Amino acid sequence: MTTETEAGTTPPHSFPSRRFTDRSAQTRAAILAAARGRFAADGYEKATIRAIAADAGIDPSMVIRYYGSKAELFEASAAVDLALREIRAAEPEQLAEDYARTFIARWEGGANDVEQLLIRTALTHHDAVQQVQRIFDEQIKPPIVAALADDPDAELRAALVMTQTLGLAICRYLLGLDPIASADPATLERAVRDAVRMHLTRSMRDDA
Amino acid sequence: MTTETEAGTTPPHSFPSRRFTDRSAQTRAAILAAARGRFAADGYEKATIRAIAADAGIDPSMVIRYYGSKAELFEASAAVDLALREIRAAEPEQLAEDYARTFIARWEGGANDVEQLLIRTALTHHDAVQQVQRIFDEQIKPPIVAALADDPDAELRAALVMTQTLGLAICRYLLGLDPIASADPATLERAVRDAVRMHLTRSMRDDA
Repeated sequence: MTTETEAGTTPPHSFPSRRFTDRSAQTRAAILAAARGRFAADGYEKATIRAIAADAGIDPSMVIRYYGSKAELFEASAAVDLALREIRAAEPEQLAEDYARTFIARWEGGANDVEQLLIRTALTHHDAVQQVQRIFDEQIKPPIVAALADDPDAELRAALVMTQTLGLAICRYLLGLDPIASADPATLERAVRDAVRMHLTRSMRDDA
Repeated sequence: MTTETEAGTTPPHSFPSRRFTDRSAQTRAAILAAARGRFAADGYEKATIRAIAADAGIDPSMVIRYYGSKAELFEASAAVDLALREIRAAEPEQLAEDYARTFIARWEGGANDVEQLLIRTALTHHDAVQQVQRIFDEQIKPPIVAALADDPDAELRAALVMTQTLGLAICRYLLGLDPIASADPATLERAVRDAVRMHLTRSMRDDA
């Protein structure tokens, strides 16, 4: 800001409001970080606005002012971006490979506190289920439906892909079940790739 | 018992002990039913021995006498028999078909309160995770390993089968995510069959 003042490119009266906005963004970020920590440690039920506010070093009324309610605060703090937008493969083979690589890289990267929180919470609270449904509808389904444009079963195929990847994430990263937990990531990436490809390409109407 | 007394085939002194055993079995069953209800309704953390005893109409000390602790009571009340023992297919194709039929029939049959309780609890309490691991080791793995006798990857294949079926169970029956929740069971049975077959037969070492 010192630089801008010296350059004289910004009218002085804009500073207070921009500084307020910066502070507001910082406060929101602090609230969300505290909320994630509390929801993860105490569970949705036991986490209180009061405890979250204390962790963020602010008054509980500020949490309500910014996020309205515990349910809305949870929704904001469990917002997940699966980074699947980049997947724009034109055919199932490549889509399966890209999908598996993105999925395994993301979970192996360890930046999955928010997904883990959301999955655990969804199994006990309906509000969180709707958030998982939105993630499917808005992030998982679109790239798959786009790649299978003429397939009337595209949405169900996308959903079956989700059952496989969610099941693997839960067994390996949330429950730590062996031998899935001890398998090497490259082996799992190939398994996910083959499973995704199978769900995208298998005949849905056979009677074998 | 009247019949036996009239027939004179059982010495009279055995009656009190058998009747005591019957009563004990009834009490245990009542405790387990109450425990399942409480664990499901209140969650593992909040369910108390006191509340469970009250629901069963007995003294809390009786619950401790029969089951020792809340952790042991949970273990007993979440004992699951997946009925996979019957699956003794000699080759993967048939195993996949039998597995899918057994899995879908069991979950569609709606007698899955205990599995649902176990899955939900496992995502928040480590004791329950060990129980899920035992179910894999003792019930899911053996028939698959038996059918894939010479395959060094048989255990990992079995685990991948579990990731698919657990993921489907969670998406459809626990979370109710669409369009998995609204798909017809026959369609899902074919999807599970094809996924199981794929996990049992795909090359594990390719570099495609």
